Amino acid sequence: MSNPVVVEVLRGDRVESSHRGAGAVVDADGRVVLAFGDVERPVYPRSAVKALQALPLIESGAADRLGLTDAEIALACASHSGENAHVALATAMLRKAGRDESALECGAHWPLGEAAARALARSGRRPSPLHNNCSGKHAGFVCLACAQGIDPGGYVSPDHPVQRAVTEALAVATGTSLGEENRAIDGCSIPAYAIPLRALALGFARFATGRGLSAGRARAAARIRAAVAAHPSVLAGQGRFDTQVMTRLGARAFTKTGAEGVFCAALPELGLGLAVKADDGGKRAAEVMIAALLRRYGGFGQALDRFVAPPLRNWNGVVVGALRPAGPLG
Amino acid sequence: MSNPVVVEVLRGDRVESSHRGAGAVVDADGRVVLAFGDVERPVYPRSAVKALQALPLIESGAADRLGLTDAEIALACASHSGENAHVALATAMLRKAGRDESALECGAHWPLGEAAARALARSGRRPSPLHNNCSGKHAGFVCLACAQGIDPGGYVSPDHPVQRAVTEALAVATGTSLGEENRAIDGCSIPAYAIPLRALALGFARFATGRGLSAGRARAAARIRAAVAAHPSVLAGQGRFDTQVMTRLGARAFTKTGAEGVFCAALPELGLGLAVKADDGGKRAAEVMIAALLRRYGGFGQALDRFVAPPLRNWNGVVVGALRPAGPLG
Repeated sequence: MSNPVVVEVLRGDRVESSHRGAGAVVDADGRVVLAFGDVERPVYPRSAVKALQALPLIESGAADRLGLTDAEIALACASHSGENAHVALATAMLRKAGRDESALECGAHWPLGEAAARALARSGRRPSPLHNNCSGKHAGFVCLACAQGIDPGGYVSPDHPVQRAVTEALAVATGTSLGEENRAIDGCSIPAYAIPLRALALGFARFATGRGLSAGRARAAARIRAAVAAHPSVLAGQGRFDTQVMTRLGARAFTKTGAEGVFCAALPELGLGLAVKADDGGKRAAEVMIAALLRRYGGFGQALDRFVAPPLRNWNGVVVGALRPAGPLG
Repeated sequence: MSNPVVVEVLRGDRVESSHRGAGAVVDADGRVVLAFGDVERPVYPRSAVKALQALPLIESGAADRLGLTDAEIALACASHSGENAHVALATAMLRKAGRDESALECGAHWPLGEAAARALARSGRRPSPLHNNCSGKHAGFVCLACAQGIDPGGYVSPDHPVQRAVTEALAVATGTSLGEENRAIDGCSIPAYAIPLRALALGFARFATGRGLSAGRARAAARIRAAVAAHPSVLAGQGRFDTQVMTRLGARAFTKTGAEGVFCAALPELGLGLAVKADDGGKRAAEVMIAALLRRYGGFGQALDRFVAPPLRNWNGVVVGALRPAGPLG
């Protein structure tokens, strides 16, 4: 059975491209509010679960022991653009752990943000692991280890105490069993576990409400949500979807993109978790999918219209087409 | 009826993402050698037909009258990376037409090539229309007008003599009727016409052989093929698919990428034209599709293996997965 077409790309009034996908909206009791496509097939959520992977950093007391700020906690959940502010936060986190960028095991890449990449090029410097969009998550892992007197070396390995704690938090929130049989390697070298969209949506419903989590973990989730809502520019960067949407919606929503067309979100006031994936891994499709679902369930009026049906402009600024939700999202 | 899955993206041994698509291999008599998916639905070929759009520049005698070099002719067919060499060629073409970059109506964007974009940023300059990946095609349009004493102003309009000539060449080669009913606007502001993949493949079979074209147009096609084969680095740029494949295959093949997952190619010795489109517009999928077809029909041994099944590496250089052709291409 193939997943339905969920996003169409129009040029003029003709469909130029189309994206198939699946998605689920689930409440904290596991009730499926909406499901389209195959939501039981395990998919790699990639960076979309960084907020769940950050739970041990808060719950363990490591963040408090090292005096992490809300902005730094937000960076631990971010796929950031590598702007100066992001690099400064990651540097500060590592310093609080008594380390520097040499502790990061994520590898280096040019900043995701085009302006940030060009600014770095203009400065004549090369990217470091601090510019990696995952550097905040990794700095958080280093903080989690150091605050507990554990050697952070090798923290990307599935058997390291840091990854054991992170995997346990992810497994409990999503109600799944995560082991070698559903594990691969992520872009930043940590384990990537495949999890069904329904379970991911459940994880974010629990993250949104604390229901189904221990008291300490529920408090950690609330603190992470507040930290990200207060620092939407930390979560992604200038012009990026997460930052723009969170800036508009604040604590009423939580959104987080993942590579390969995954998007997760939470609506705390409504107690709902959302998870979608575009079959083909398309980022533009995942953004339209999650925006359409947030608009449908969140009651945000027109605040999300421009994300649900973004126009396509050519190099002269002329509108030549648009994206639009289709099928179960149309 | 949905198109089949044609490319799979693996992370570990699990399929993380998949691409559906359609494609056709056709000979110059219109015989369909292979078709998968819907090859009769009109799709926008975008930049994949630049070589057909360049036919009037040669056939009219404009290129000879202005003394265009083979490298400049190759640039007229290019979606280039905006490297210094590309910018210099576009500048030279315009100078031969007695014009400068102010004659270009394509709009400006940062160079497609990441290294070129960073080099431009490092220099402290901003992109001009010369950096637009289509600047060679547009410079060719300006040359076509000026060599015939026609004002190039407004050459992107469907009613301008340049676009009339270009559209006629495209319509004849592909055996289609191109008018307002299947027209939209391309990224560089010229008309974008929707054409079935079967007809696009026929167009490239004719381009490959000259069969079905007038004698003058057949000679123009041969000259374009030779020019591109001699200058593969002009066609795209450092590290890009077209440049790498054409460098390996030379005159035995012609390949050209288009936006939104379209790819066209020709095998002159075999008299075949090829056209594919990934439904979702994915570039990586189109590259695997055309590489798989070129390998199957071209008899190139292992020269294309790395393009048919490229490994995926993470930021630490670790192989974490791979792309592979699937379904009718598997």
